[in-house]
Amino acid sequence: LRRNHARSASAARRGGHLSEDSLIARLRDLIESHPGNARVLSSIGDDAAVWQPSRSHRSVITTDALVAGVHFRREMMPARDIGWRAMAANLSDLAAMGARPVLATVALGIASCAADEIFDLYRGMLEIASRHGCAIAGGDVTRAPVLTIAITAIGEARPSRVKGRSGARPGDIAAVTGPLGASRAGLHLAANADVLPPDLRAEALRAHGRPEPRVGEGRWLAASAHVRAMMDISDGLSTDLRRMCERSGCAALVQTVPVAASAAVMANARGEDARAYALAGGEDFELLAAVAPRAFAYLRGQFAKHFKRELYAVGRFREGSGLFIEGASGEEPLPSTGWDHLQ
Amino acid sequence: LRRNHARSASAARRGGHLSEDSLIARLRDLIESHPGNARVLSSIGDDAAVWQPSRSHRSVITTDALVAGVHFRREMMPARDIGWRAMAANLSDLAAMGARPVLATVALGIASCAADEIFDLYRGMLEIASRHGCAIAGGDVTRAPVLTIAITAIGEARPSRVKGRSGARPGDIAAVTGPLGASRAGLHLAANADVLPPDLRAEALRAHGRPEPRVGEGRWLAASAHVRAMMDISDGLSTDLRRMCERSGCAALVQTVPVAASAAVMANARGEDARAYALAGGEDFELLAAVAPRAFAYLRGQFAKHFKRELYAVGRFREGSGLFIEGASGEEPLPSTGWDHLQ
Repeated sequence: LRRNHARSASAARRGGHLSEDSLIARLRDLIESHPGNARVLSSIGDDAAVWQPSRSHRSVITTDALVAGVHFRREMMPARDIGWRAMAANLSDLAAMGARPVLATVALGIASCAADEIFDLYRGMLEIASRHGCAIAGGDVTRAPVLTIAITAIGEARPSRVKGRSGARPGDIAAVTGPLGASRAGLHLAANADVLPPDLRAEALRAHGRPEPRVGEGRWLAASAHVRAMMDISDGLSTDLRRMCERSGCAALVQTVPVAASAAVMANARGEDARAYALAGGEDFELLAAVAPRAFAYLRGQFAKHFKRELYAVGRFREGSGLFIEGASGEEPLPSTGWDHLQ
Repeated sequence: LRRNHARSASAARRGGHLSEDSLIARLRDLIESHPGNARVLSSIGDDAAVWQPSRSHRSVITTDALVAGVHFRREMMPARDIGWRAMAANLSDLAAMGARPVLATVALGIASCAADEIFDLYRGMLEIASRHGCAIAGGDVTRAPVLTIAITAIGEARPSRVKGRSGARPGDIAAVTGPLGASRAGLHLAANADVLPPDLRAEALRAHGRPEPRVGEGRWLAASAHVRAMMDISDGLSTDLRRMCERSGCAALVQTVPVAASAAVMANARGEDARAYALAGGEDFELLAAVAPRAFAYLRGQFAKHFKRELYAVGRFREGSGLFIEGASGEEPLPSTGWDHLQ
């Protein structure tokens, strides 16, 4: 559903490259042979895909684009991981809404990709999507100056369980679902190859290349009336906690930052403060939740029982505006060190 | 939900440009002040948007990306028209499925766009979307090497009315909802400024800059049991009719091509055959339907009554494979002259 008027349609086919129709046909085979597409009634090949939405749930939609040179570097990551990460980012947004993933569409802009790389991208997307029961319902492939992956994911949630970012209240605990900074450590591995011992190296590479969206945790937290707001940490806690404060009309004080082991060692090797390093680290895809204070201890205990992981209290919401952090000499304003996509 | 590890997050803000958060806030104001967002319960500002799907319908999803330099040239078209066209392309896909548009998300990649141009893009998208009852439920804004607009649109259709591309049968009439080639004539206006008289110039510019997706026509045709397959003509009839043939497992013979008046004059001025010019013209966004032969005359009459436009018979499906056209010396094979997005 797109046409390039800017060049001649009769341009000779470039050697070694597939035509659009044959690429689409091969992608259809790849996708339809994958488990998890049962709920999608009509897929790639028509103008649109069709599915039967749940009758008792609300539908939830999110979209997110990754651009080579902006969000990742082609040479630093296998195509399969690029696909995984792009899909994980969208599933993480659904997780933040307490939604169950249903399906995703992919608009792929390709520059010089060989066909094998495109299939590897799709394999990475399919791998993480099907782990969470998410079908890929087709999409669009076009030329672009650099590899561009725009994914839209649809999920379903019970109306009572959708939290959003605006429900945090003064007194609430700010909690995160895991330690932070490992994805950033994975990024910095390229320039600091020998800094981490093998186990921490594996932690950092996994966090960076194959991050786990907290889909189960998000649905579980959303089911609790004591969780008042939720979002995922994609741009760094110092940026995303501020966003939750602004949407909720309150301030927050950061007291404790759970730093991933690989991030602590990497920060140290780079001469940076570990806490600041983790606060600025995006794409860990942990969830940030505002939890009613009297319920936090109970919720943390149940969370640990269900997920064998810790729910970390990182601070408190309070009256006012802005973000603060407990430093050696008392409270200080905490600047947003995370990423602004337009700067 | 995305982070750039490839550059420093503390990079100085460029003069005259908005930060991501302030741009998103201004876009939220623009979108929420627009009519038609009532069914979307939660919009820009959370990780995802939420809506209540219809209980009696299927949901339909389509995605489509436009890339500057590939699908359009920035200098040839105002930002508002670029936004309109991008949204129209997605609404046209929903129309081909016989679906009613519900909402859309937008993943915008921006290079050097000034804020005003981004708002103009959104104004064009909002204008055509709200004409068809389609809300814009937010999206993603990121940097990109060139302006990139990936839109995903959701619609709803009764299960019995979704047609797809694979239902054409030998003997069916191939029909289109309007004359073809005007959008291509609009493209060629830049290089042939004085070829068209004012009224045809206006026709070509409108078709190229503000194409009308056939949403009402698509829903109406889909409601007829005599319409067996449907798609929109985005890449040219010679390409898209072949796609319908391949999906339906049959051949087709093109007998008559309805050529838009502006296309006929433009083709003549360029020394090209008018019929060939219209067959290769994409982005008219007319619908192509396979209609049971005994019902065609009746359907055409009712269509004219409802829409004050003609439903044109362009040819017939038949046994076999491939696409043919009636020429001066009998039938000839018809090559695909439309656009392949990867060549």
